[in-house]
Amino acid sequence: MLALPGLPLVHPGDDLAGLLASAIEAAGGVAPGDVLVLAQKIVSKAEGRYVDLATVTPSAEAERLSVETDKDARLVEVILRESRRVVRHSKHVLIVEHRCGFVMANAGIDRSNVDPVEGSDPVLLLPEDADASAARLSQALSARFGLSVAVVISDSFGRPWRQGTVGVALGAAGLPALRDLRGEPDLYGRPLRVTETGFADEIAAAASLLMGQGAEGQPAVLVRGLVLDGPDRPAADLIRGAGEDLFR
Amino acid sequence: MLALPGLPLVHPGDDLAGLLASAIEAAGGVAPGDVLVLAQKIVSKAEGRYVDLATVTPSAEAERLSVETDKDARLVEVILRESRRVVRHSKHVLIVEHRCGFVMANAGIDRSNVDPVEGSDPVLLLPEDADASAARLSQALSARFGLSVAVVISDSFGRPWRQGTVGVALGAAGLPALRDLRGEPDLYGRPLRVTETGFADEIAAAASLLMGQGAEGQPAVLVRGLVLDGPDRPAADLIRGAGEDLFR
Repeated sequence: MLALPGLPLVHPGDDLAGLLASAIEAAGGVAPGDVLVLAQKIVSKAEGRYVDLATVTPSAEAERLSVETDKDARLVEVILRESRRVVRHSKHVLIVEHRCGFVMANAGIDRSNVDPVEGSDPVLLLPEDADASAARLSQALSARFGLSVAVVISDSFGRPWRQGTVGVALGAAGLPALRDLRGEPDLYGRPLRVTETGFADEIAAAASLLMGQGAEGQPAVLVRGLVLDGPDRPAADLIRGAGEDLFR
Repeated sequence: MLALPGLPLVHPGDDLAGLLASAIEAAGGVAPGDVLVLAQKIVSKAEGRYVDLATVTPSAEAERLSVETDKDARLVEVILRESRRVVRHSKHVLIVEHRCGFVMANAGIDRSNVDPVEGSDPVLLLPEDADASAARLSQALSARFGLSVAVVISDSFGRPWRQGTVGVALGAAGLPALRDLRGEPDLYGRPLRVTETGFADEIAAAASLLMGQGAEGQPAVLVRGLVLDGPDRPAADLIRGAGEDLFR
């Protein structure tokens, strides 16, 4: 795994694929099977996914949740607009089902590492469709290098039952985000019972070790040496349907 | 990351630290900051953590849960003995709070990759105390190589809300399993809001990419190049207290 050096701070409208390609070239290029893991924030920034809280008027529900969670009502309003529903909340905690299906805190919105601007109060949303963003970036990089470059867009999630955040995949292209091992035998020839691995989530967690937490210093990590067999599957396949979930 | 080649199948009473040291030496030795990630199963096997289901008599509660989960009543009995309580159950699913605090399926017990023995039906439990096992192995390897070797004992967990298993840490020694970033500023100098990372869990997830799922083929992965700053913390620190948890 290599954290790409030399990537500039990303701004709305930047050609992110171009910036990444230059950084990859400077780092020695790509090899077959490479996966580029990108922190969600640089993708969102390039896509201009900012909302200025100074322009937001909270709904009554946002006002009520703001009191119960001790969060800015305008921020809660933006979180609710990005969400299908609230899964749990308590003081300082607001777990929602994001409109893309991710169950996560604050719909992935926070203020850290967003450029402060005089007279405004910007927050950064997740990419509109992180799988589509990953696919576009993968296509652009693959065309540039004449070689398939898989892309994972990652974020840090808290978890029930366990302390500490871990990297997870919001978007993926060019690899099986969910890997099916059904039917493969164990060491003694019996069918394996655990049948699917969160492949893109494990890649995101691995890359997170190099990205560091929160800071945008190393937002792009190239992962080399994985075997990407199996059909491509997007990160949307990592979302468990509500009907199969015992914890909503 | 390097999956250690040449490790033999592990049996009860084996000197696991000795087997690992030989495999590490054959692979070129250790470097400062190395973390050795071990699949739980080889640690449990060395510790002889087998139970023969042929010797188990299910309780009434195990019989009832066995019907509701469609699992072997003797296996359910062993799961309950290893657990503080049942968190959720449904057909084919039994989520418990393991006596060490992990919220997980089946108390980590399954039959895959356990040597079949004529006339008996062995299952393998988790190590008695995975943090203590990690500490013993870390001490033995550090003494052998004259250099601190951190150890993470990993397993694959399913998750609420997301499909696919990911590697997580059951035990850790020689590193901060939970890493505290409280007070570190973000890129723009404001305090970071997300304050702790599941460092050992991310290491376990990364190593899981090399171990493959389920099979015991590559149960030991050496991870090189991480910065292990911060005070050592065991994997027990990764467990969220029930009082802080909205999902039990």
